[in-house]
Amino acid sequence: MDITVAVDCMGGDHGPHVTVGAALNYLRRSTETQIVLVGLRDAIEAELRLRHDAPAQRLRVHHASETVGMDEPIASALRSKKDSSMRVAVELVKKGEAHACVSAGNTGALMAISRHVLKTLPGIERPAIATILPTLTGHTYVLDLGANVDCNAEDLLQFGIMGASLVSAVEHKERPSVGLLNIGEEEIKGNDTVKRAAELLRNSGLNFHGNVEGDDIYKGTTDVVVCDGFVGNVALKSSEGLARMLRIFLAEEFKRNLFTRLAGLIALPVINAFRHRVDPARYNGASLLGLRGIVIKSHGSASSRAFEYALERAVDEVRNGVLRRISDRMTVPHPGAA
Amino acid sequence: MDITVAVDCMGGDHGPHVTVGAALNYLRRSTETQIVLVGLRDAIEAELRLRHDAPAQRLRVHHASETVGMDEPIASALRSKKDSSMRVAVELVKKGEAHACVSAGNTGALMAISRHVLKTLPGIERPAIATILPTLTGHTYVLDLGANVDCNAEDLLQFGIMGASLVSAVEHKERPSVGLLNIGEEEIKGNDTVKRAAELLRNSGLNFHGNVEGDDIYKGTTDVVVCDGFVGNVALKSSEGLARMLRIFLAEEFKRNLFTRLAGLIALPVINAFRHRVDPARYNGASLLGLRGIVIKSHGSASSRAFEYALERAVDEVRNGVLRRISDRMTVPHPGAA
Repeated sequence: MDITVAVDCMGGDHGPHVTVGAALNYLRRSTETQIVLVGLRDAIEAELRLRHDAPAQRLRVHHASETVGMDEPIASALRSKKDSSMRVAVELVKKGEAHACVSAGNTGALMAISRHVLKTLPGIERPAIATILPTLTGHTYVLDLGANVDCNAEDLLQFGIMGASLVSAVEHKERPSVGLLNIGEEEIKGNDTVKRAAELLRNSGLNFHGNVEGDDIYKGTTDVVVCDGFVGNVALKSSEGLARMLRIFLAEEFKRNLFTRLAGLIALPVINAFRHRVDPARYNGASLLGLRGIVIKSHGSASSRAFEYALERAVDEVRNGVLRRISDRMTVPHPGAA
Repeated sequence: MDITVAVDCMGGDHGPHVTVGAALNYLRRSTETQIVLVGLRDAIEAELRLRHDAPAQRLRVHHASETVGMDEPIASALRSKKDSSMRVAVELVKKGEAHACVSAGNTGALMAISRHVLKTLPGIERPAIATILPTLTGHTYVLDLGANVDCNAEDLLQFGIMGASLVSAVEHKERPSVGLLNIGEEEIKGNDTVKRAAELLRNSGLNFHGNVEGDDIYKGTTDVVVCDGFVGNVALKSSEGLARMLRIFLAEEFKRNLFTRLAGLIALPVINAFRHRVDPARYNGASLLGLRGIVIKSHGSASSRAFEYALERAVDEVRNGVLRRISDRMTVPHPGAA
């Protein structure tokens, strides 16, 4: 089947320069995909002219006259910009003109617009943001990453269901394991919400592993890690901050003097192989889960190569029927879920 | 002034082998310190015999017949083990026979025993656990790391006061900056507790920077980062997990083949310099703040060298009058704090 993806070309720190370039590169290697480039026609066409070999038959431009700023308040993006590239891209999904959309814009605005335009799937109270992270044994999916700052136990249960559905669809795992992020493995640990969520998850029919701790994310203890958006966001951003610090320190040590520079030159292929393994670009593309449509959020500062990974994630979710998986799981009765 | 530190010799994964060795090494380089080794006399004396050159005049053994297990429930450690090495070490502080105590034992038990035996400082509702972390620009103090899983805004304010007092004492900074861990820098972000805490901190007289995000910890944006114990614990443990994963991946890449091994040999001095900069041993020793006595928690798996850092932190806090600093700040009236 041909999959159509709507791309919000104006979102992200670099706008059309990155998004249009990434779309063209992606089309070249994925021949069953069509892309709708959404945004200011002039800006998009200027980028297209720079790249003569655009596969025109699988590409079209959809003009949208407004742009949501990276720091724009959610209310303003939602209410006063009816013709923003972000909103029009989401509306193309709603109308059935695209199977999914991808944006590197403001996360809060993207979630609010997606929720308003697409609505949530039956039974889902609150959509969540899920991302994939590298682990010692492969990778793991973590949700929520900031869509919901005050979650109750039922929300955490729904995150578990949505995360497991996502993993079973795109990773072809029948019963992915689900861990609940806590501050100790013992059942008595944690706050009341987490304790109640553990109970709900235990009776949910999911393959519930039990509590996991922060370090279990990178150990790869479970396929899915569930947490509230505040905790997930802090864990993700601290990790990003630590990784960046280590990268800078390592570079500084290799630049210290002539000897260390030489050592760096010799070790370069090894350092590059190491960098590739944990390259954040390969993990770009967070899923807004629980909506009646597939929406992928790219990192705002994503490079063209990183944005391609987000496009690939969108296509993957369409191809593997993530929405239907979540709907199916939500309709199977499980104790405790509303 | 001579400073006396009580050491819980039985705590931690390695018991007296690490704690006694570290105490002797520390005494050798810190001539104004006295140490009381607390625990099973036979086990401690066996370790001392292995090390002939113990500076006997600044060292004494205090027998305690019981040991708190690393996974022992808090209630059992607190109620049924009145003669545990952990409890006796804390009691030596209470009785004035030691200025501080250090334990690598079970964190929950150490906090419960310390709180029960020492009580909190006037005005402090809940003690917190503070640790020091490396940053791009130096280091920063983060609290709470797991003592309190359900914090209200007033608790977060008190953590700010205690953290600032600690930093002003041991780092000799008159007005250390305090950041509130949140999921966005904007004032409107975050849950209700965090929003109210920001208001209290803004009116507290502290040098309040405002909201910080997870990556600000490692950027070193502020001297102190305040968060609830659940969030802090997850952030710390995810960071530990990520650092471990990166260390393993880097080692694997250098071990891949003959060429990479050779490159590793040549790059070894650089890699070692890098490792030293972020060596967790140098940051070992978390402070239990808000008690009427100085209690330092060492990592359970600490090496002898790492345990020495925890001892040094205890001596530093005594020498710089951390307790008095906290008391002074708590008695200065500030709006919002009870």
